[in-house]
Amino acid sequence: MGKIIEGKLIAEVFRNNIKNFAKENYSKGIRVPKLAIVMVGDDGGSTFYVRNAKKLSENLGLDCEVFHFDKDTSEESVVDTIKELNIRKDVDGIMMQLPLPDKFNEKYIISKISHKKDIDGLTDVNIGRFYSGEKCFIPCTPKGIMELIKSTGVDITGKNAVVVGRSNIVGKPIAQLLLDEHATVTICHSKTENLMRICSRADILVCAVGKPGFINEDFVKEGAIVIDVGTTMVDGKLKGDVVFEEVLKKSAFATPVPGGVGAVTTTMLLKNTCEAFEKNVR
Amino acid sequence: MGKIIEGKLIAEVFRNNIKNFAKENYSKGIRVPKLAIVMVGDDGGSTFYVRNAKKLSENLGLDCEVFHFDKDTSEESVVDTIKELNIRKDVDGIMMQLPLPDKFNEKYIISKISHKKDIDGLTDVNIGRFYSGEKCFIPCTPKGIMELIKSTGVDITGKNAVVVGRSNIVGKPIAQLLLDEHATVTICHSKTENLMRICSRADILVCAVGKPGFINEDFVKEGAIVIDVGTTMVDGKLKGDVVFEEVLKKSAFATPVPGGVGAVTTTMLLKNTCEAFEKNVR
Repeated sequence: MGKIIEGKLIAEVFRNNIKNFAKENYSKGIRVPKLAIVMVGDDGGSTFYVRNAKKLSENLGLDCEVFHFDKDTSEESVVDTIKELNIRKDVDGIMMQLPLPDKFNEKYIISKISHKKDIDGLTDVNIGRFYSGEKCFIPCTPKGIMELIKSTGVDITGKNAVVVGRSNIVGKPIAQLLLDEHATVTICHSKTENLMRICSRADILVCAVGKPGFINEDFVKEGAIVIDVGTTMVDGKLKGDVVFEEVLKKSAFATPVPGGVGAVTTTMLLKNTCEAFEKNVR
Repeated sequence: MGKIIEGKLIAEVFRNNIKNFAKENYSKGIRVPKLAIVMVGDDGGSTFYVRNAKKLSENLGLDCEVFHFDKDTSEESVVDTIKELNIRKDVDGIMMQLPLPDKFNEKYIISKISHKKDIDGLTDVNIGRFYSGEKCFIPCTPKGIMELIKSTGVDITGKNAVVVGRSNIVGKPIAQLLLDEHATVTICHSKTENLMRICSRADILVCAVGKPGFINEDFVKEGAIVIDVGTTMVDGKLKGDVVFEEVLKKSAFATPVPGGVGAVTTTMLLKNTCEAFEKNVR
């Protein structure tokens, strides 16, 4: 029987560190880190996420300002705000909430964010540095996943890691981070042949497919670490890619959904904000 | 018995296309594509490479200007030249010959190249776009390798591809390009356990290790495509990673060294220069 990787508890540790970090800087008379969130329109998921991020920021003693634009606003107003935030000394991190309404050119708007404040790791410069193995902001979901894996205490070096899914925001960056930690990394996707066999050899299996219950115990090696990044709403309930109960029995460690990867991502965004702050006030 | 992938013949096809492209543009009264090469100091390998690139450019009817600085020149003089080349209308591509002498900050100098003229794909912006799967300049060696693989006519989709080596200039980008072509990709390196077994499952095996004769037939699956990126000088002769004769017998296709990957890279640089030209004169 494997152990559950408790995302909430792991997030709690990071949150305490962030809280102390903010408190310390405040008490030294410097200031607290500040996150600016830019949001356009009223997408339900976005509204929920932004509200949570703001609440968490404030709970941890960080400053958070939301710039909320009407969906009919012009692209240039959004860009003007970004440009202003880029130069504002009191703003450490800028998060552009995605998706933007259809008429907006996302790539163009993102390209206007200074890479020094790009705490979500969306700009080309940041992505370039990320894949070159240089100092940069690591996108929140992959960063959180690595913390969950590291929390097991298992040495990643030389391990056989398999990532199912090759998206720009999860599959590819998590493969890169596992490679940085000296795992042998295989990236699988919808065109992969013999997926089950490949997965069943993995010491570390990261599932980012988006098909509820797709990964059952047959995909899992005895004693593996299984990370479930899938989040699909089924009958009003959040479902992962992994059949959790049976996979947990076979694996050494597995993340639940909810309470696994999703529980750490926003915390990682605030951790990145603190890292941006450190460079900004230096 | 496998077939030899004849890098020289494949390069020849691309060279003819480049030649015709330059001729056509010249005869239309536009102009020919122009490559600017910036070089500092007198490194032997660099001198050789730059001389060859210039010669090949001119043979194909492209314009090529070399900006050769003394090793004692200031960083700012090099940067000033790059800035000038960035805005010069008649210059399509800028190649910064590496390595630079020790006192130079390579990253800083490279960051000054406009990503629109970065035909070697060295800037952060270009790398970011590359790994995001967007339009960009594909670095010459990985680009050449893909052309060699495609020359076999074998469909890459769903194939099991293994890349040995995880450098920023070969291993990581070739893994990305194979993934873009829907291969299932495994990246191996010095910390990989059971390397031989992993390689022996590969339909496409790319070796970028730098150890002469490291990959023998035991690493190779019957009927595989084997690409040898290794180039080590042994007793004045260029040696690849692969024991060519025995691997060729087992594989379906294999590249020799010399005459394989090395034979196409400079041609790819000039192909990128033509692509830059097309955007530049549009």
